[in-house]
Amino acid sequence: MGLPVLSAIFRSRVVCQRGFVALLNCPKHMKASVSLFSHSAGRCTQTCQALIYRKHGDPSGVVELEDVPVHQTGAKEVLVKLLASPINPSDINMIQGTYSILPKLPAIGGNEGVAQVIEVGSQVKSLKAGDWVIPRDAGLGTWRTEAVLAEDDVISVPNDIPLLSAATLGVNPCTAIRMLSDFEDLKPGDSVIQNAANSGVGQAVIQIAAASGINTINVIRDRPDFTQLSDRLKAIGASHVIKEETLRRPEMKELFKTCSKPKLALNGVGGKSATELLRHLQVGGSMVTYGGMSKQPVTIPVSALIFKDVKVRGFWVTQWKKDHSHGKQAYYLQCEKRVRVSQKIFKVCFLVVIFFPRWEDIQSHAG
Amino acid sequence: MGLPVLSAIFRSRVVCQRGFVALLNCPKHMKASVSLFSHSAGRCTQTCQALIYRKHGDPSGVVELEDVPVHQTGAKEVLVKLLASPINPSDINMIQGTYSILPKLPAIGGNEGVAQVIEVGSQVKSLKAGDWVIPRDAGLGTWRTEAVLAEDDVISVPNDIPLLSAATLGVNPCTAIRMLSDFEDLKPGDSVIQNAANSGVGQAVIQIAAASGINTINVIRDRPDFTQLSDRLKAIGASHVIKEETLRRPEMKELFKTCSKPKLALNGVGGKSATELLRHLQVGGSMVTYGGMSKQPVTIPVSALIFKDVKVRGFWVTQWKKDHSHGKQAYYLQCEKRVRVSQKIFKVCFLVVIFFPRWEDIQSHAG
Repeated sequence: MGLPVLSAIFRSRVVCQRGFVALLNCPKHMKASVSLFSHSAGRCTQTCQALIYRKHGDPSGVVELEDVPVHQTGAKEVLVKLLASPINPSDINMIQGTYSILPKLPAIGGNEGVAQVIEVGSQVKSLKAGDWVIPRDAGLGTWRTEAVLAEDDVISVPNDIPLLSAATLGVNPCTAIRMLSDFEDLKPGDSVIQNAANSGVGQAVIQIAAASGINTINVIRDRPDFTQLSDRLKAIGASHVIKEETLRRPEMKELFKTCSKPKLALNGVGGKSATELLRHLQVGGSMVTYGGMSKQPVTIPVSALIFKDVKVRGFWVTQWKKDHSHGKQAYYLQCEKRVRVSQKIFKVCFLVVIFFPRWEDIQSHAG
Repeated sequence: MGLPVLSAIFRSRVVCQRGFVALLNCPKHMKASVSLFSHSAGRCTQTCQALIYRKHGDPSGVVELEDVPVHQTGAKEVLVKLLASPINPSDINMIQGTYSILPKLPAIGGNEGVAQVIEVGSQVKSLKAGDWVIPRDAGLGTWRTEAVLAEDDVISVPNDIPLLSAATLGVNPCTAIRMLSDFEDLKPGDSVIQNAANSGVGQAVIQIAAASGINTINVIRDRPDFTQLSDRLKAIGASHVIKEETLRRPEMKELFKTCSKPKLALNGVGGKSATELLRHLQVGGSMVTYGGMSKQPVTIPVSALIFKDVKVRGFWVTQWKKDHSHGKQAYYLQCEKRVRVSQKIFKVCFLVVIFFPRWEDIQSHAG
């Protein structure tokens, strides 16, 4: 089993206080770091370890590793051990205090991850020891080693898929699937254009679209290793990979000789990048915004709204899950279907993790 | 019968060339001007008069009054005399060459109006002499005294409604009705917020909403006669009339103590005004843009899209009519229903004309 996602990413740059720094910077402690999130045996019924913040601010200044109590498992509860928990940009925003929903403080960081059920309460019916579960909603606090959770707060996932796929199933691939499904009726041969194409969501979009016969036009910022990144994205199914500045150039006409104009634009950036995506949408198409990494608003020419009838929408997976919580397995079933139905799509979640945004990228966007 | 809308408006300021100037500026010719658009007897089978432009530019420099031929009425055609033809901002944009659809040049100005059928071709079944008709689509060239038109290019309207209501039925009230109907499911007690509330569309919105029990929050620019205009808008049904700058002030909280947050925002301005409307929309509400008088794009905070789930759309009545042309009477039936069902709504179209935007307003927006 590989390194848990959390430690694999935090290792590179983050400077937290006390125990966490020691764990991450000292080679001797690297295995200890792994063991925090991937217990191989035994269970702690008294305390577990968690990454806690008591006030909002820069994560490197406010997040600390602490021992926290684990209460006895109730009749409708399950005791779980966390196997892997990723870092998403929204986790960082939540610690910074800039996210739309904020937990009560002190809070344990992390909103996503996969855990193994260790013990179930006497009235728990849907889960058994050994099952893998992921959080139903945001705010669960997944940067911890163990937890006692209500049966209804988790959703079981297959435990024969890659660990890192399971750990990152609920946010980025789920966002990608819903955006590809809920705004336009996409058919094989249709096109989707997206910026931030190398983000977690972007790579999930590429792979799900490719598996569905949908072309993707993938926009990324220019960089020294553009060709390598482009090749990587093409290897997972990207039809076209272009630089931001290409959107304004005549070669787009050439591209559209072999690729239909996109019905759907996916925007994780905002600002000029979003406006440029809009220009290439087909009449009546939709642009869906799921992020604003540039910290600039979305600017839409009036003529695009009136004469091109573009539809401008937003998507927030957290809200989507809340809205669909009455159908307990609703969003998971969508994800599981993609994961299990074919090997081609099974690859999706795994690759999303492999190419997970680097800490440097998150920091440069957040800074 | 009152003055035709066209002459009533052009009279105030426009300086066109040759015959048109003479007609409008010389009291002796005022009746001649009326007669151009309101023949009381007889018919001209050889020529009629029309306001023509042969190149795009400022209307005062390029529009001329000319005699144009009227061909013999064909089997599937009708000969009509124009009774009244208004000026809409889009007519001006079309002459300027800045509109999304442009006619072949030379072209006769005007896209809206009401005409009386004088003669029908041998195979015409849906119309008879004496009927009133309005254009089905934009681009018909209604600034003329007579025309021979295909039966399918016109839609009959009742000839017992006020002339000026009939002449302006197809654009502004139709836009208002569709925007109030097609984007949100509005119920009595719900609210709509709109800028440009004193425009033709804005006043139609006020009256149709009031007749349906829907509150309107009407935003207008500050002006010396603000109170008078506010009173006028309230007299036709406006629930609240506020200045642009009030949108940013704490008194909005007071307003929303007695009025629900709007489900729908109607934007005819763009720029900051549109962004301010968005701020007051309820979660999940829609903003529909039908004009851009400020010539500024619509700017949307990413958070409004993601976390407030606002839906940003556009509406273009010309396209709507094209899309619904398979149901020949579809859009007219909507309008007629409003006009005829109750006296309260019957008032709508009439008042829209009475308060039609002044030439000065059109010029200041276009300039």
